[in-house]
Amino acid sequence: MVYGVIVAGGIGSRMAADKPKQFLMLKDKPIIVHTVEKFYKHDKISKVIVLVPNDWVEYTEELMDEYFGDGNGVCQGEESASANGVSASVDGVSASANGVSASADSASASKIIVISGGETRNETIMNSINYIEEKFGISDETIIVTHDSVRPFVSYKIIDDNIQAAAEFGAVTTAIGATDTILECSDEGIIERVPDRAHMYQCQTPQTFKALRLREMYLGLSDEKKAILTDATGILMDAGDKVHVVMGDKKNIKITVPSDMKVAEVFLDD
Amino acid sequence: MVYGVIVAGGIGSRMAADKPKQFLMLKDKPIIVHTVEKFYKHDKISKVIVLVPNDWVEYTEELMDEYFGDGNGVCQGEESASANGVSASVDGVSASANGVSASADSASASKIIVISGGETRNETIMNSINYIEEKFGISDETIIVTHDSVRPFVSYKIIDDNIQAAAEFGAVTTAIGATDTILECSDEGIIERVPDRAHMYQCQTPQTFKALRLREMYLGLSDEKKAILTDATGILMDAGDKVHVVMGDKKNIKITVPSDMKVAEVFLDD
Repeated sequence: MVYGVIVAGGIGSRMAADKPKQFLMLKDKPIIVHTVEKFYKHDKISKVIVLVPNDWVEYTEELMDEYFGDGNGVCQGEESASANGVSASVDGVSASANGVSASADSASASKIIVISGGETRNETIMNSINYIEEKFGISDETIIVTHDSVRPFVSYKIIDDNIQAAAEFGAVTTAIGATDTILECSDEGIIERVPDRAHMYQCQTPQTFKALRLREMYLGLSDEKKAILTDATGILMDAGDKVHVVMGDKKNIKITVPSDMKVAEVFLDD
Repeated sequence: MVYGVIVAGGIGSRMAADKPKQFLMLKDKPIIVHTVEKFYKHDKISKVIVLVPNDWVEYTEELMDEYFGDGNGVCQGEESASANGVSASVDGVSASANGVSASADSASASKIIVISGGETRNETIMNSINYIEEKFGISDETIIVTHDSVRPFVSYKIIDDNIQAAAEFGAVTTAIGATDTILECSDEGIIERVPDRAHMYQCQTPQTFKALRLREMYLGLSDEKKAILTDATGILMDAGDKVHVVMGDKKNIKITVPSDMKVAEVFLDD
């Protein structure tokens, strides 16, 4: 089973704005809806788990319902489901338990599940793994395709390449060859090293992992290391695993500042 | 004296298109005209030397005349000047010889000079230094602000900061803090190192130097080293000089692929 894991921010300071970036409208739809759609429509993705700060779970569920549901289509995470007694969540579980195949399932509205993220990016990813284990069962071959909610221009092919490479190698990140010369500088702003650009990449997402291996390595870390290894690839590299690079796309931008929104509007028309 | 040095490509394969990128229209003006304008209007820049492939010198002169000249305003480089007997070039020299100050001169049309570039970026920069020495004289304090012709969004402040920092430190490059996590990968596409992002920068231009020091270090290099140190900052670092970083701007993009043109049109409206 392959799961899309859409990481939509922790509960950190970046959320100080009246509405987190992922909920801003990009032409006809909120950014996060554009992003989720890429995974929703992908025939190799069984479920799309969307992780948002706790205060935004209900809002996000309503958004998903509005854009993907038929009124009650979007499957809710455990807390909300038990609180509301909505049966969609139970349906989602039983469909998976009955061995309904990913492709047969790909058009169903209950493909999208909204749950709370954790305090950090890695804790958020752990939440998704724990949820998968509890609701659908998990094996060594279970793959999670983790992706920033504010990168709406990920392509079918990039997701596909991620899944294939993760099945073969276990851990994968998307990246593009550095477009600029990269400089390594001192704290004083003096260049210390100009590494060979041919070996330098700019990291994007998705980052795709065998879920159990990632969790095992994460849980084995000291609190100190957890604080340092903020990127999931770092956890596996620290364990000595090889993390492979899958080619991304210059257009697969992360929307973080207002000018990115303008660029995104241009890309949307492409 | 401070010179703008606009580097508009060697005579390499990138020029295979029917027209090099710098001559493409960006809304109302060719890209290179937008770029030159930033230096032309800057009150601390004495002259703007535009270096283009030999076959494009005449074309570029006509462009500069069209946008900045009053019919005969743009000063031509030595070859064209001597071939045509145009007196503008001679005027340019005598104005400098007479000690006309940079600011008094800044509005004059003969502020722009078009000459041939070299086979490589560094050879092109050397052409500008040799030209300055021959026509205007040169000293240890002569500064060249070298800039890509396809980065039209450089700001007054970035140029200003470059000039100030180069006067103090001798060698400066413009850069921005890396927006993405940077990965260092093997030839096989496996991550080897994830350097601390706080120390990683993406290089832009201008790169600003004390001209004589740069030329001295370049001429002292072996042919082998010349082939490796394709970026002028590398020449000075190789010599043990400290190269300082001046803060650039995310908008100071290099236009290299068609989608960049679309982004540039958005930035132009900002």
